[in-house]
Amino acid sequence: MSISPVASILIDDLAQLASPAGRAAPLRGADLRSLDVIEHAAVAIVDGVVAAAGDRERVLRAHPELPIHDAGGRAAIPGLIDCHTHAAFGGDRANEFDLRAQGAGYEQIHAAGGGIAASVAATRAAAGEGSLGAALDRHLAWMAAQGTTTAEVKSGYGLDRDTELAMLDAVRAPHAIETAATFLRAHAVAPEFGEDADGYLDFVLADVLSAAADRAEAADVFLERGAFSAAQAERYLRAAAGHGLALRLHADQFSEAGGVELAIRLGARSVDHLEATGPGGVDALAASDVAAVVLPACALMLDLPRPPARALVDGGAVVALATDFNPGSAFCDSLPLVMSLACMQLRLTPAEALAACTVNAAWVLGRAERLGRIAPGYDGDVVILEADDWRHVAYHLGGRVAADVFKRGERL
Amino acid sequence: MSISPVASILIDDLAQLASPAGRAAPLRGADLRSLDVIEHAAVAIVDGVVAAAGDRERVLRAHPELPIHDAGGRAAIPGLIDCHTHAAFGGDRANEFDLRAQGAGYEQIHAAGGGIAASVAATRAAAGEGSLGAALDRHLAWMAAQGTTTAEVKSGYGLDRDTELAMLDAVRAPHAIETAATFLRAHAVAPEFGEDADGYLDFVLADVLSAAADRAEAADVFLERGAFSAAQAERYLRAAAGHGLALRLHADQFSEAGGVELAIRLGARSVDHLEATGPGGVDALAASDVAAVVLPACALMLDLPRPPARALVDGGAVVALATDFNPGSAFCDSLPLVMSLACMQLRLTPAEALAACTVNAAWVLGRAERLGRIAPGYDGDVVILEADDWRHVAYHLGGRVAADVFKRGERL
Repeated sequence: MSISPVASILIDDLAQLASPAGRAAPLRGADLRSLDVIEHAAVAIVDGVVAAAGDRERVLRAHPELPIHDAGGRAAIPGLIDCHTHAAFGGDRANEFDLRAQGAGYEQIHAAGGGIAASVAATRAAAGEGSLGAALDRHLAWMAAQGTTTAEVKSGYGLDRDTELAMLDAVRAPHAIETAATFLRAHAVAPEFGEDADGYLDFVLADVLSAAADRAEAADVFLERGAFSAAQAERYLRAAAGHGLALRLHADQFSEAGGVELAIRLGARSVDHLEATGPGGVDALAASDVAAVVLPACALMLDLPRPPARALVDGGAVVALATDFNPGSAFCDSLPLVMSLACMQLRLTPAEALAACTVNAAWVLGRAERLGRIAPGYDGDVVILEADDWRHVAYHLGGRVAADVFKRGERL
Repeated sequence: MSISPVASILIDDLAQLASPAGRAAPLRGADLRSLDVIEHAAVAIVDGVVAAAGDRERVLRAHPELPIHDAGGRAAIPGLIDCHTHAAFGGDRANEFDLRAQGAGYEQIHAAGGGIAASVAATRAAAGEGSLGAALDRHLAWMAAQGTTTAEVKSGYGLDRDTELAMLDAVRAPHAIETAATFLRAHAVAPEFGEDADGYLDFVLADVLSAAADRAEAADVFLERGAFSAAQAERYLRAAAGHGLALRLHADQFSEAGGVELAIRLGARSVDHLEATGPGGVDALAASDVAAVVLPACALMLDLPRPPARALVDGGAVVALATDFNPGSAFCDSLPLVMSLACMQLRLTPAEALAACTVNAAWVLGRAERLGRIAPGYDGDVVILEADDWRHVAYHLGGRVAADVFKRGERL
């Protein structure tokens, strides 16, 4: 985890201050849309932490000592939290995007040696020449410009010891925004192991897990036909849990293969994707504490079936949204666009989408005590929008919605 | 029409220069993807017009006199052309967006007095207080930041004489980017006329058409149940053609109601929307010179069926893409996002999407001799992307893709 420096500031003249209500995390069911919207507001941040937020006159009276940032009558929301990204990678896959638009399928490209193999080669090269950190910084700067102040970033494009540890070290290094490192060594079988997933896992668990556990907060696995089975995923995740890592799973992207059941059984933090999850999986998640992380930009880019986000919310599951930023299936740094897609395609309301990118995403990352709200005691992470109505964050489709972004009181 | 000032500049060090091939316009069928991509390129712009474009050494030798802009190894594409927008409006409809996400339908909102009626009230108010031009300028600046250098803007939120003419005057006034004014008096029946569409048209044709024809280049009509019938649209458009205006139609958004047939019969420039167009309409357009303007952001925001863009291209129709930027059904200023959606949802290739937003959009606006390509004799409208591969304009989903934008050689 890297945490940026702290600053003190009073953000004045907010037309609206919108923040998930209460102190509870995560939010589920009808509580997901319980947003506090205060008009004519201000936020006082002292040494990086919110000291007061709400009625403008009250905040100004309480903190006359603070330097003032004039928000000019705009609306503010909490800093957005992207709880599922693969933002540490070399190269890009624009060529593959072009091929896909010409008709090639994701699994076809994967089978033809494109897909993740291309990113593994480019990321190993970037790590080898020392440019991986710069690539990650460029991507994090794009994300920050869209309002993201905290991002999870996974390894998984190295698939060898040195590159995987270099990826985790790059994530843990200081950045303009806060990062959380996840060890996704079970993203794919390393090319050196052919199709021997079990042999690869034997090697991984003996070779690197201990070193990775010192660098990461969580472990993640891609449970899918062509990647890892439920049994293989369980072996990897149990070993990771033994090293104190929190657990995440990529599951049900193309097919239901037991990922939801496994996540619940192991007490994972989240199960992510869920485009193929049926009613049984929805019900199981709704009855569990495992978060359902929905990734609408990936579903859009690959033209997958829509994940059942509305049913998950209505059933009472813990729902979060994330970009899945990666070079293959979601070259997307924008949580505001993800919120737009969630409202337009998945039938979430703007308030639900905002909570899913703030308080619930913070919970997925184990940071709900500190992140996801603009309220006393929370970190001073604030996005001032271009508009005077907080709903523009989802309503303004594809536009630049973040006017100013503050991380722990510091203007990015 | 407003045209911005001209400048002279040499844009140097382009990793790629991508521009629709040849000189023909419009491009149809397989020609739509005939893109020239030159590596290690430069563009010389003299007095606002491209004097040379291509191999870097050649361009530098030919124009040693020009000041240089260093593109830093990035890719360039032609300035994007948005051939269908409603960017002159007061207020916004974020509240309606929220209601829709909660389950209300477009036609429900329309029937309940929301929808366009809200924008008519806000636009009349803005025109009355003199703030309409500032609102339009704000929207055009957003569009320019995304790479748009020319935009069509329609009237149609006044529906009374003074506001409609004020809208056209606002569009014709000087702006940072070039604008083309379209008279969309038949957008809806003015509230003063209740449901008397014929009575409203009688009044419009007698009252204002002549004054509008002095201010606009084209006329447009919303042919749809609840708006205007094919017979009413024909009466309006024939009168507009009699005043020398080019013809456009909104048609087949929710239902096929004769718009395609009417557009072809009247020799319209374009028929726009087409979400409900069936195979017969596709074939008819493919055999005609009427452009099919597809609006994927609107289809996304309203969750409409996908327009048959792939079938239109394959059949040989003239296909263009546009944002439909408006406060109700497409609060979207980004042609790059529209291109992403066209590739991800409508199965266009990036090259087809680029031609549809450049040379074909220029043709829809009657500007194909001058706009839509980076080639000698064309206006010096150039977008330098953040990336070194032109395909990032569609691949980078929702991100900031335009690094620098030039209109007639002048950096915006």
